[in-house]
Amino acid sequence: MPPVSKTTASKTNTGNFFEDFTVGQVIEHATPRTVTEGDRALYGALYPTRFAVPSSAAFAASVGLDPHPVEELIAFHIAFGKTVPDISLNAVANLGYAELRFHQPVHPGDTLSTRSEVIGLKQNSNGRSGVVYVRSTATNQRGEVALDWCRWVMVHKRTAATEGGDLDAPETVLPELKKTLAPEDLVVPAGLDFSSYDFSAAGEPHRFDDYEIGELIDHVDGVTLTDPEHMMATRLWQNTAKVHFNTEARPDGNRLIYGGHVISMARALSFNGLANAQLIAAINGGSHVAPAFAGDTVYAWSEVLDKAAVPGAGDSVGALRLRLVATKGRDESMTLRTDEGKYADGVLLDLDYWALIPR
Amino acid sequence: MPPVSKTTASKTNTGNFFEDFTVGQVIEHATPRTVTEGDRALYGALYPTRFAVPSSAAFAASVGLDPHPVEELIAFHIAFGKTVPDISLNAVANLGYAELRFHQPVHPGDTLSTRSEVIGLKQNSNGRSGVVYVRSTATNQRGEVALDWCRWVMVHKRTAATEGGDLDAPETVLPELKKTLAPEDLVVPAGLDFSSYDFSAAGEPHRFDDYEIGELIDHVDGVTLTDPEHMMATRLWQNTAKVHFNTEARPDGNRLIYGGHVISMARALSFNGLANAQLIAAINGGSHVAPAFAGDTVYAWSEVLDKAAVPGAGDSVGALRLRLVATKGRDESMTLRTDEGKYADGVLLDLDYWALIPR
Amino acid sequence: MPPVSKTTASKTNTGNFFEDFTVGQVIEHATPRTVTEGDRALYGALYPTRFAVPSSAAFAASVGLDPHPVEELIAFHIAFGKTVPDISLNAVANLGYAELRFHQPVHPGDTLSTRSEVIGLKQNSNGRSGVVYVRSTATNQRGEVALDWCRWVMVHKRTAATEGGDLDAPETVLPELKKTLAPEDLVVPAGLDFSSYDFSAAGEPHRFDDYEIGELIDHVDGVTLTDPEHMMATRLWQNTAKVHFNTEARPDGNRLIYGGHVISMARALSFNGLANAQLIAAINGGSHVAPAFAGDTVYAWSEVLDKAAVPGAGDSVGALRLRLVATKGRDESMTLRTDEGKYADGVLLDLDYWALIPR
Repeated sequence: MPPVSKTTASKTNTGNFFEDFTVGQVIEHATPRTVTEGDRALYGALYPTRFAVPSSAAFAASVGLDPHPVEELIAFHIAFGKTVPDISLNAVANLGYAELRFHQPVHPGDTLSTRSEVIGLKQNSNGRSGVVYVRSTATNQRGEVALDWCRWVMVHKRTAATEGGDLDAPETVLPELKKTLAPEDLVVPAGLDFSSYDFSAAGEPHRFDDYEIGELIDHVDGVTLTDPEHMMATRLWQNTAKVHFNTEARPDGNRLIYGGHVISMARALSFNGLANAQLIAAINGGSHVAPAFAGDTVYAWSEVLDKAAVPGAGDSVGALRLRLVATKGRDESMTLRTDEGKYADGVLLDLDYWALIPR
Repeated sequence: MPPVSKTTASKTNTGNFFEDFTVGQVIEHATPRTVTEGDRALYGALYPTRFAVPSSAAFAASVGLDPHPVEELIAFHIAFGKTVPDISLNAVANLGYAELRFHQPVHPGDTLSTRSEVIGLKQNSNGRSGVVYVRSTATNQRGEVALDWCRWVMVHKRTAATEGGDLDAPETVLPELKKTLAPEDLVVPAGLDFSSYDFSAAGEPHRFDDYEIGELIDHVDGVTLTDPEHMMATRLWQNTAKVHFNTEARPDGNRLIYGGHVISMARALSFNGLANAQLIAAINGGSHVAPAFAGDTVYAWSEVLDKAAVPGAGDSVGALRLRLVATKGRDESMTLRTDEGKYADGVLLDLDYWALIPR
Repeated sequence: MPPVSKTTASKTNTGNFFEDFTVGQVIEHATPRTVTEGDRALYGALYPTRFAVPSSAAFAASVGLDPHPVEELIAFHIAFGKTVPDISLNAVANLGYAELRFHQPVHPGDTLSTRSEVIGLKQNSNGRSGVVYVRSTATNQRGEVALDWCRWVMVHKRTAATEGGDLDAPETVLPELKKTLAPEDLVVPAGLDFSSYDFSAAGEPHRFDDYEIGELIDHVDGVTLTDPEHMMATRLWQNTAKVHFNTEARPDGNRLIYGGHVISMARALSFNGLANAQLIAAINGGSHVAPAFAGDTVYAWSEVLDKAAVPGAGDSVGALRLRLVATKGRDESMTLRTDEGKYADGVLLDLDYWALIPR
């Protein structure tokens, strides 16, 4: 039998450290994953989603989407999960997202693969970690882009720089990322047509024109989180970050809830007030402001940040730029920040996205 | 930014109050929902169901049911869930069901929509609430009726009547509802034929003739309930009642378990002794006698209330009218009521239904 | 109303006792079960599996497997679950498995039925129980064998033998079972061809030649078990053993976790280091060394026991014989047994299987 130390080290993935990344490097992530109707059902069991397009094949067909697409966040979570073993297994923190665009609907039967290109690097002055910027692209089995996005993560160095050892730090490269995608950047699914949209079936009468910039919407309902549910969700996306599954991975014995679980929970809760914001076209950015744990009760509110026509989308489709805020405990005052500009207590998530809605 | 109070109130659904209902009113419920094989799998993960027809496409085809139908209670829970935001979001209590009939099997790919008509109203003498009677009908994507049922619910008034304010109470209308559907009311699925039924594959030898009116069947097995499981089930049916999901919604911090979860659990447990009661044709009525919470261990027993041939169903199909009782903790004595006529301690559910079984 | 005692006893399954088994007896188990894409999704939600073949229809097709097979353990759990009500409802202990072979891939849409033949019996000297040996065979809707295996279980006698009562013990028959299936016993799925295998998509570069006999692989990651998850898994397989579901079934109030849950968890964890051990061809044997309960954190390590070409499989396919060990808490020393030859503390599972891997 060979020595344990050798064999242990030789086969298992210990993830990439800051030193392993170079600008321009392309990483093909394992493993491709086929989306199924089972994913749709589990998503509906884990999140209180009721948006009519992903809920009903008949409704989806009535707005031009046939075959029946799954919720965009299913595609996002799957595509994102693939990047974890290569990009963020040794992450100190997920710092941000930008320029996330859905290029076409994803349907049961589609197989998603993800590839990332390193587009920026910056070693921290402490010599122990650095920020890695990647642009990740998920493609389907026909090689077509399903979604892409940028993300930056603080990653541990394998070996901390000794004093003066910053000499071997890579040249700092900072990518230019849009703070917000413009309406002309949005991709509207081929065939989407809200002109015979059934508001009654969809659940609310409010259309594009009924929302005003600056308007706040309290989504009212709350859901108390549990460990089995967030673990099932996170596993479904093949996201392997240990902190989500292993009570021995953190000193406090808690399982940290995957940030995407809170995004999906808040998006589903936002049905109550935004039932017609049917499709997510893009995510401009997002902050996981505070960690969430089992026992926390998540509520959500939204702010209308902008409104726009979408070039080429036809007269029936409008876009709302929305801030989606998840809170621990309900905040009827819908306060994002304190007077000092810090996030208010209880804020878990601050997400900025574009949704498509009937005009 | 507009005032918070205005915007908060303007978009989110606060549900209907007693004053919002009028006899003859028709409510189209959001949102249509497509049934998938994922629902069948989740149902099997959440309930210990083993009935051969929903379990096996091959078995179902052998009794004339092809394509493969899902369990009737899946259709019921989905259809019922749609009514919650409009009918019972402000309910004090679900008082009862009647005349529930399954008109045809539901298959993966079918999209269910539900509509309700208000068929009765009665304001309570306290002036603070009233009883609303509705007949709800779920149709598939072809506009065919899949199931319908009546239900009555005690709903809060938005504004309690002041003294003498009963003047504005609506005229009391009480619908005539059958206590029990007659055998000739039952709809047998087209093509159903038990004449080459495989009792060995189905799991038990007992057929129609083996059951006697008055017979009690102890289903023996028990399942301890958990919060994540009932929340996943209830969400799957897009049932939004807060008390099921939010520990902050009740003073005791418990999540109240959706009554339908107990129905499905008891029905699944009844396999042991009623394995050949393959299909639910109708539900005559039911009482959720006591609330259930995580940690409770649910057992079930049944009583044969009646037996009948079903007109037009052919010689191979019989109907058993069954009382399905769910209890918290096992009651080997199978006692429904105390000598005073009250439900015995531990009884959670008393359900009266018609099942189809080989003769 | 008939007397309760009679009616209770008459319909519910109390399982078979040792006296009910005879050598040569064949038992057709209820109920047939159709596999769906929902099972694949739930399996992925319950276990951190990432093997490329079951994860991706496109990847599976690229190695000659089209339609898209489900993970072999899904087929095993379903097939095994069917035997529980007839074989092991009154079991004292599951003693072992042997000669488990997968004869062909299982796909969504396939319906599995299981039949068992009693191949051995041995009453224990205490007169209170005995060992029953069965060979179980699961067939699909076309009557083709999907998998078969042997298993032996210690089962209670209905009536303990009185002193001298051993006279009515059945003749002892002990089947000859192979300790290990030979490479020529393995069935390689028709069409399997790893010659254009995409190691990058599969997640690791290690092929057949990279593994050495005696090599140990620490799979590193751990998952903390929960009650809702193991109950959902076990129900999905229609396994009815009470101890998994009912806190009142054991004096300590714990739900005993189905041994198959630990097998699937360990197999999924083994992706990290054995990502290319894509298919399980056979299980030579296994021991559930210690019970697992909610709160335990499961880790896994593997040992390469043997390597072999598979006759008739073509040059691209090799077989690794692997020992898969699940532990409660991580054991970086990967110690199977103490110096006295007993299993080391923390070992939950010791499984010996053959996996197919690209050469």
